[in-house]
Amino acid sequence: MRYLLKLAFLGTDFHGWQSQKNARTVQDVLNAALSDLFGEKISAVGCSRTDAGVHAEEFFAHFDAEKAFPAERLPAALAERLPKSVSVLEGRVCDPAFHARYDAVGKIYRYEIRLSPVRDPFWEGRALFLRRAPDAARMHREAQAFLGTHDFSSFRAAGSEVEDPVRRIDSFEVKEHDGRVTMTVRGNGFLYHMVRIMAGTLLDRDAGKDLLPIPEILEKRDRTYAGITAKACGLYLQKVFYE
Amino acid sequence: MRYLLKLAFLGTDFHGWQSQKNARTVQDVLNAALSDLFGEKISAVGCSRTDAGVHAEEFFAHFDAEKAFPAERLPAALAERLPKSVSVLEGRVCDPAFHARYDAVGKIYRYEIRLSPVRDPFWEGRALFLRRAPDAARMHREAQAFLGTHDFSSFRAAGSEVEDPVRRIDSFEVKEHDGRVTMTVRGNGFLYHMVRIMAGTLLDRDAGKDLLPIPEILEKRDRTYAGITAKACGLYLQKVFYE
Repeated sequence: MRYLLKLAFLGTDFHGWQSQKNARTVQDVLNAALSDLFGEKISAVGCSRTDAGVHAEEFFAHFDAEKAFPAERLPAALAERLPKSVSVLEGRVCDPAFHARYDAVGKIYRYEIRLSPVRDPFWEGRALFLRRAPDAARMHREAQAFLGTHDFSSFRAAGSEVEDPVRRIDSFEVKEHDGRVTMTVRGNGFLYHMVRIMAGTLLDRDAGKDLLPIPEILEKRDRTYAGITAKACGLYLQKVFYE
Repeated sequence: MRYLLKLAFLGTDFHGWQSQKNARTVQDVLNAALSDLFGEKISAVGCSRTDAGVHAEEFFAHFDAEKAFPAERLPAALAERLPKSVSVLEGRVCDPAFHARYDAVGKIYRYEIRLSPVRDPFWEGRALFLRRAPDAARMHREAQAFLGTHDFSSFRAAGSEVEDPVRRIDSFEVKEHDGRVTMTVRGNGFLYHMVRIMAGTLLDRDAGKDLLPIPEILEKRDRTYAGITAKACGLYLQKVFYE
């Protein structure tokens, strides 16, 4: 039987979603909890490969199990078997053909910036800290150049050239409020490091670094023209859409 | 010379403010950082003794040092020497007669409750979790009985009977908003565990436990009539007032 889980996790404790040797990942702790609960070896498939330190307010994973377990009791049963930085919000039985990753038709990521002259212990590992407020209105205007379907080769990690680099961005909002700046981006999918490079490029341009305007960087299809990869700790997977 | 620091700390990592043998406290890490910076043994005096796990969004501490150091550079200099769960927000030279604890004329504490059927990894160690929403409006009405000057013997930890139990509560607000319930209480001072017992008593009464109404519990001057001591992780020292 195929099950679908809705999860949330604080990324600070993990080397991302994807199982790794010699590093603690969300997939590893979830597989261990599921295998213990079902009494069989279970391997969950996640909706995306998040980087080390990236957080998820909503994350989906499916898995197959021989044995049956009441799906509505999965959150409580897994809570006892998972570290406190991971929570199963919902569990249900799904179509055996459903795939958490390939069936996702869109995602919303949010990048969090705290404006503070000193460290804020309550946001440590949960945001990028900036002493100086960037011009959020100008960044918002510039970010609109990302909208639509583009070749995002300039905005993916070097060395990840296997995948088709064409993605569609539906919205990109940059907003300043209450000592925070948030960038919220919705698209049909994202390349490796893509949100972090888009955020870093907008911030680098705001800081006066010598970078081309966004449309010209897109045209170059070359990572070296974009800005830095903004720190992982500021990134949140906020929402995942299925048909 | 006497210096005054404004701090913030996430209580999760600490056994409270007060220095202890064999336990990590905020005072210990601060004294170590100050002693290292000034090159002399320094002992800071805090505005209150917070319990293990209690957080502070604002906390004041004074200390004396033989050597002079530019006070405005204390936040940055101490940031390098303190764990990330403690931040020095401001530093300044103060009157040698000023005392962080005895000169405090009031404090605001906030108790945070998250309403969630499952664990929320983003609030783990930062709030009390409740599955069922308490009746915040009713709790607010009941809490108004705390206002004014009373003998709070019923609302302090058993075994702490040395101190004068009379305190003045200026305001007590219980509010539900966005999946949270917050209790915000302002007073001229608080006995050991007082805010946590007030919060626990309101919650116990809401949950239908057999407890007297607040005015009658106050009159008893006996800890056994009040409710539980609510978990430390939900408590925040929010503001400290001086003349």
